[in-house]
Amino acid sequence: MRPRFPVPDWARRYDASLLGADVMAAVIVTVMLIPQSLAYAMLAGLPPETGLYASILPLVAYAQFGSSRVLAVGPVAVVSLMTASAVAPVLEAGLASAPAAALTLAALSGAVLVGMGLLRLGFLANFLSHPVISGFITASGLLIAAGQLRHILGVPAGGGTLPGIVAGLAEQIGAVNPATLAVGAGVLAFLWATRCCLKRGLVGLGLSAGLAGGIVRAAPVAAIAATILASAAFDLGARGVALVGEIPRGLPVPGLPPFAPDLVLALLPSAVLISVIGFVESVSVAQTLAAKRRERIRPDRELFGLGAANFAAAFTSGYPVTGGFARSVVNYEAGAQSPAAGIFTALGIALATLFLTPWLAGLPQATLAATIILAVLSLVDLPALRRTWRYSRPDFAAMLTTILVTLGLGVEQGITAGVLLSLALYLWRTSRPHSAVVGRVPGTGHFRNIERHQVITTPGVLALRVDESLYFANARFLEDRIAALVADRPGLRHVVLMCPAVNEIDASALESLEEINRRLSEAGIRFHLSEVKGPVMDRLHRSTFLSHLTGEVFLSQHEADCALAGDQPPEPQKLS
Amino acid sequence: MRPRFPVPDWARRYDASLLGADVMAAVIVTVMLIPQSLAYAMLAGLPPETGLYASILPLVAYAQFGSSRVLAVGPVAVVSLMTASAVAPVLEAGLASAPAAALTLAALSGAVLVGMGLLRLGFLANFLSHPVISGFITASGLLIAAGQLRHILGVPAGGGTLPGIVAGLAEQIGAVNPATLAVGAGVLAFLWATRCCLKRGLVGLGLSAGLAGGIVRAAPVAAIAATILASAAFDLGARGVALVGEIPRGLPVPGLPPFAPDLVLALLPSAVLISVIGFVESVSVAQTLAAKRRERIRPDRELFGLGAANFAAAFTSGYPVTGGFARSVVNYEAGAQSPAAGIFTALGIALATLFLTPWLAGLPQATLAATIILAVLSLVDLPALRRTWRYSRPDFAAMLTTILVTLGLGVEQGITAGVLLSLALYLWRTSRPHSAVVGRVPGTGHFRNIERHQVITTPGVLALRVDESLYFANARFLEDRIAALVADRPGLRHVVLMCPAVNEIDASALESLEEINRRLSEAGIRFHLSEVKGPVMDRLHRSTFLSHLTGEVFLSQHEADCALAGDQPPEPQKLS
Repeated sequence: MRPRFPVPDWARRYDASLLGADVMAAVIVTVMLIPQSLAYAMLAGLPPETGLYASILPLVAYAQFGSSRVLAVGPVAVVSLMTASAVAPVLEAGLASAPAAALTLAALSGAVLVGMGLLRLGFLANFLSHPVISGFITASGLLIAAGQLRHILGVPAGGGTLPGIVAGLAEQIGAVNPATLAVGAGVLAFLWATRCCLKRGLVGLGLSAGLAGGIVRAAPVAAIAATILASAAFDLGARGVALVGEIPRGLPVPGLPPFAPDLVLALLPSAVLISVIGFVESVSVAQTLAAKRRERIRPDRELFGLGAANFAAAFTSGYPVTGGFARSVVNYEAGAQSPAAGIFTALGIALATLFLTPWLAGLPQATLAATIILAVLSLVDLPALRRTWRYSRPDFAAMLTTILVTLGLGVEQGITAGVLLSLALYLWRTSRPHSAVVGRVPGTGHFRNIERHQVITTPGVLALRVDESLYFANARFLEDRIAALVADRPGLRHVVLMCPAVNEIDASALESLEEINRRLSEAGIRFHLSEVKGPVMDRLHRSTFLSHLTGEVFLSQHEADCALAGDQPPEPQKLS
Repeated sequence: MRPRFPVPDWARRYDASLLGADVMAAVIVTVMLIPQSLAYAMLAGLPPETGLYASILPLVAYAQFGSSRVLAVGPVAVVSLMTASAVAPVLEAGLASAPAAALTLAALSGAVLVGMGLLRLGFLANFLSHPVISGFITASGLLIAAGQLRHILGVPAGGGTLPGIVAGLAEQIGAVNPATLAVGAGVLAFLWATRCCLKRGLVGLGLSAGLAGGIVRAAPVAAIAATILASAAFDLGARGVALVGEIPRGLPVPGLPPFAPDLVLALLPSAVLISVIGFVESVSVAQTLAAKRRERIRPDRELFGLGAANFAAAFTSGYPVTGGFARSVVNYEAGAQSPAAGIFTALGIALATLFLTPWLAGLPQATLAATIILAVLSLVDLPALRRTWRYSRPDFAAMLTTILVTLGLGVEQGITAGVLLSLALYLWRTSRPHSAVVGRVPGTGHFRNIERHQVITTPGVLALRVDESLYFANARFLEDRIAALVADRPGLRHVVLMCPAVNEIDASALESLEEINRRLSEAGIRFHLSEVKGPVMDRLHRSTFLSHLTGEVFLSQHEADCALAGDQPPEPQKLS
């Protein structure tokens, strides 16, 4: 049986032992994915079956085009939240229904991801710094958890920002439904208890760690089964508990998403953000897991894999998908050996869609909300704020801004503010580089900061080391620094710029150097360079700077110091 | 006589010798400034007297608050063009008349400049790279010259972009007014001839270079006098030649600019751009001239000086002003010793406004247009494109983009595109830093790139030098680079990251280093650092990285090499 489409590498060397491992992993992931699919679809404001549909064909598409062997693709919390936030204004404007807008969003995400892959733009994800991502995920976790509280309390409050959600809940606090609260709080307590104590208890009873872990992971399924039974037994629906309701049975019918120009225009910015965030999340997970087995993933291939998965979601009634962290780790730990595990998972979800859905109608939404809350609270990492504060103030500022703007204004504003601020802070720091007047450490050829070390300076010679590449933003800074140093030293005859940390000199910095050279020359001072790197020197040779330079380019600062020490003024002066 | 307002430094030590020099310089600058003021007001689309008014009180205000001794403030070409482009949409929307909008624009510029000074934001100007400024000024020069052709041809064509201007002229080419063309072309030819040949000719006749230069600079005044006479003699007005017309006689009446909220909102973005561009232009000129006398200017004081000048313009019927290049050089060369020269120039212009204006009514606009064209063509520096191309492709790209967008879409779009592109290119370059596997140069303790030099490597040890600060945009790049190098070297036991060019390690890069350390450790490889700078090391001590590091931090790469050479694998392997 030879498929007619291109066969991925892993499929060529597939055998029975891999098959067994992959099927086992797929069963475990399927059990985990069923409640997650339903819950995240609810989080995205979509009908529950959308989550199941997004966990079938997209997984097959990723297996065909992605590069990670263990990444488990499907609906994830953060992307579901971003979907909800992207769809809301479209709904308000009446441009499309929520499921239809989600399809268009998935198709646009697929197009953006494939486009980035074709243009090799995967590197753009690097401009999301760790503190910004970490802050964004923490804030999203808090937002999601807060947003789900309404399902636990059984009140109709809404709101896409933390103040909005809190105000909505406060308004509705009198309308809490006791039966819903009982289910929600019960499931929350049960899930929390299994997480914190069950595994340890089971291992204490003599079970293997693997089996104990498996039982713990099945806890959400147990909660679902139990609350479905309770729902039927106590007729919870009649007591005002919101249920999942009838889910259409059967596989999704393929179809085209709507592509009205105003709808596309309204969703495109969100699609770009969802794509980039989804890509970054996926690649981090995939890279971490690949490294454990000394495998490598190819970020540009991942763009195609995720793009294909989103196209698949768009054409089979799903919504935007990406690689999930918890799910991929479970897949890895369960022993998945190849993307075939993803295909088998898709098969499992398809079977669930065909045969399990009638049982899910009685499931209380509060159960799903409790599942979501416990899942996303593990994303919240507030101690990271303290760690980042201790290590770097600019990084802390970017992280805090991302968290506050995400909570206060929304997810898209948060990530945008974080990226812009971290870029601005980086540019600001490089625009005022560290520089030091240096002198020779006695008995050596090493030159160090005169303010930190006991060093010898040569009269009439000023040696300045600048610790940054020279480019337009700091070129004038260097002019000012040298002008100030020269103004303080009347007997000066030589200025040496020591460049071991200068990785580049751009055209603006070159003009500044020309200007410094000219000004020093008018003041009777020669200007020298030392320890210029090969590539920087190559480029200087392509300009006329070296022919105007009044001084020399020395290979080492020591050489410069020896050469210039001989050129003493008629009446040697000690520098202050 | 003791003034009651704060007395600037220069005024405390003022004496008769300085007075003589300043008055002489002021006379020369006044003669130069009269035609320029009229011409630039016309370029800004404003009545001619606006230019004169903008050359009175603003000069006094700058003398009081600025820090340069020779900067000559007033209407300049580029800012006039930007004013025209900012006022056009306001006129179209019917929000205000052109002179009223120009007053609001000047007041906003003043507020932006003073605001930047209070917040010490002068450094923002550093983010305009030399190629972007140079490209912008070249493109503005071309735009201005093209825009003035309609006055030379005597046709009513308009247009704010090069294609628009060319199309307008092409449409109107049949309507050329022969008398206007005769005046315009005649003045152009006369001015061009005096520029290129007159000075050399006069010096050849035995005149001193200074006197010859003075005569050449008076050429525009001669052209004005001659065309006013011609206008009267041949009744050019009746032959369809556009004349300057009646100019109100007397000093400007102080008054408040309009501050309607929608007008302010519409002009604010333009005011920010005009302020920044004006500030950069002024500071470059002032710095260049100050350096010649080993004086210094203080950029943050300049913000207040220029801000005060713009406020003065706003309250006395002027329009946005800044320091002009040609004018300041003339002021400097004429021997101006202090800002008092500016005050005397203001006096000169005030006298002209009182007594000269009746004579100017008959002046053909074509004469002013010719003056402008010759002045701005000296701003156009197309060879800079070739120089920049040779030196640096990214700088060239930023410059060419600035030129093309300025010509094609307009001045504000051009400068914005240039700044954004140059920042993006800088970030892109630092996101993929140069790095090199290094080995020891035989017989030394120096380590160099194994691809450029004949060096010795130690089996089992990989030494990688990275030539850029480590920050979020390049952190993943480093992970990938090390993963790829390790994958190629099965016998590896040690990786040493050599950091002499690493000026900073931010939180994202720190996480990448932790990740690299963890991955290498899982593969049985130890990870070391060498030549880490003091400030970077200080910061690493504030994190937990050093306690997780499987290897050591060596002071020098040589030390690392010696220490690790002893740790050989059981069966030594030669590295490929």
